[in-house]
Amino acid sequence: MKLLLSGSFDPGEEAEWRAAFAAALPEAELLSPAEARACANEVQAAIVANPAPGSLQGLPRLKLIQSLWAGVDRLLADPTLPAEVPLARMVDPAMNAAMAETALWAVLALHRGFFTYARQQQAGLWQPLPQRRADEVPVLVLGQGQMGRTAAARIAQQGYPVAGWRRDGSALAPLLARAQIIINLLPLTADTRGLLNAGFFAALPRGAGVVNLARGAHVVDEELLAALASGQVGHAVLDVFHTEPLPAPHPYWQHPQVTLLPHAAAATDPRSAAQVAAANVRAALAGQPLANLVERKRGY
Amino acid sequence: MKLLLSGSFDPGEEAEWRAAFAAALPEAELLSPAEARACANEVQAAIVANPAPGSLQGLPRLKLIQSLWAGVDRLLADPTLPAEVPLARMVDPAMNAAMAETALWAVLALHRGFFTYARQQQAGLWQPLPQRRADEVPVLVLGQGQMGRTAAARIAQQGYPVAGWRRDGSALAPLLARAQIIINLLPLTADTRGLLNAGFFAALPRGAGVVNLARGAHVVDEELLAALASGQVGHAVLDVFHTEPLPAPHPYWQHPQVTLLPHAAAATDPRSAAQVAAANVRAALAGQPLANLVERKRGY
Repeated sequence: MKLLLSGSFDPGEEAEWRAAFAAALPEAELLSPAEARACANEVQAAIVANPAPGSLQGLPRLKLIQSLWAGVDRLLADPTLPAEVPLARMVDPAMNAAMAETALWAVLALHRGFFTYARQQQAGLWQPLPQRRADEVPVLVLGQGQMGRTAAARIAQQGYPVAGWRRDGSALAPLLARAQIIINLLPLTADTRGLLNAGFFAALPRGAGVVNLARGAHVVDEELLAALASGQVGHAVLDVFHTEPLPAPHPYWQHPQVTLLPHAAAATDPRSAAQVAAANVRAALAGQPLANLVERKRGY
Repeated sequence: MKLLLSGSFDPGEEAEWRAAFAAALPEAELLSPAEARACANEVQAAIVANPAPGSLQGLPRLKLIQSLWAGVDRLLADPTLPAEVPLARMVDPAMNAAMAETALWAVLALHRGFFTYARQQQAGLWQPLPQRRADEVPVLVLGQGQMGRTAAARIAQQGYPVAGWRRDGSALAPLLARAQIIINLLPLTADTRGLLNAGFFAALPRGAGVVNLARGAHVVDEELLAALASGQVGHAVLDVFHTEPLPAPHPYWQHPQVTLLPHAAAATDPRSAAQVAAANVRAALAGQPLANLVERKRGY
């Protein structure tokens, strides 16, 4: 079978994906966009990771567009994306686990003051902080998809009182008022863009920790900086940004209350993700039900 | 009942302990060392936390010495400690949980490169690192007491392959050869002093992470610094030191491969620890079996 592989990969990354697909889907031939155009009638599915705009057009036999990334907001923003072809997100168990690890690390570090101790080390200051039990530190997880649920379960397992919220669920303000730490794992949609704004931060208890592992556009940066400056937000852990890599002069880089990760909270693992994609490609070609389908109107 | 309370507390800390004992053991009168000497024949038990040497002498009716700290190495080093009175360590469930939190945070941070990302943030560098699954990162926990077992269980729960070692158990070298991360939670005894030395570090895989949450004297500092300089140890998380607070000119303070905590990995929580101590005091006065007794020959 012939598949299109279209993405903007880091050096070495495409070779890693090709090796993973050679193991997971040995019957497939992975074509570049140029190769796919040369035999457009034979291309049955597309495996994509931030594909070049237009690269999915002119493939009349396409039965599936399978994203290698969990977030499809950039893909859906491409007006040339074929509207009639089923589109699937990646739901990679290794990526879910990695995201839960990052969320749990951030919760433990915020709860136990480990970011503060790092600043104290730089300043040569030896100063133990008061110690709270985990059951005294409520955590709110925004987003109740696979990643949100996995993270919430692992955090709850450590004894934290964990609440979850989804956009179409219960009222947000009372949940924010009780949360010492919030973890954002929402999909980016028109409804969630800019959700972490001045009003959101004002609804938190003073000094709360904010962890954004979803998309940079969920946060209104100027309003987070103001909340950090006033102490309303005590510390922020940010993995994602409006522009990535985060530009050099951005105030987040050297901010003592910001822990910055280079969009590294959770990477798709080619070894397991290729297995997930392979199963979906085989299902598409056999006319069987597909997993992880995107509802385009909903946006994820 | 009259009890001696003898310790070197931080400001406010003694009041916190007195409040916790007022709740947990309201029938007790907690005497200072001077007050206890005034009615030495009536003092039935001693609650101690690094007591001044000699403060436990001359109390003929003492039925129990209950430490508020888990580590009793400093207490046992006092030659005036009455030899015939039962001595109990503190086993505080809140402290065990706090220690496991710190151990898990250190494992997650070492596994996922979060200490490296912190250095990169300071340098203005955006550089995602390769991502391993937890099941690819073996962890070795030294010490199989309450704290070692609680930490090992929580780390294993996150998917890490975890091995445990105790001094009188299996050979250490083969376990070190397989460990990407080691967590020290051993008691400090004549047998474990200086265990983390050049030979120990050389037995680890190159670039391993070393986490010392037990006692500073477990580590030969010059040999750890040499192992960090050569890259044999990739990063160290150190909570405890030969001299505390760690003196200002010590190379650990500004070392880029050292994360330093101010002996804050786990504090005894007066609220739960006073309950544990109260149960032991009541048992001692009733002639019932005592919990958490120290074997003085063994050293813990």
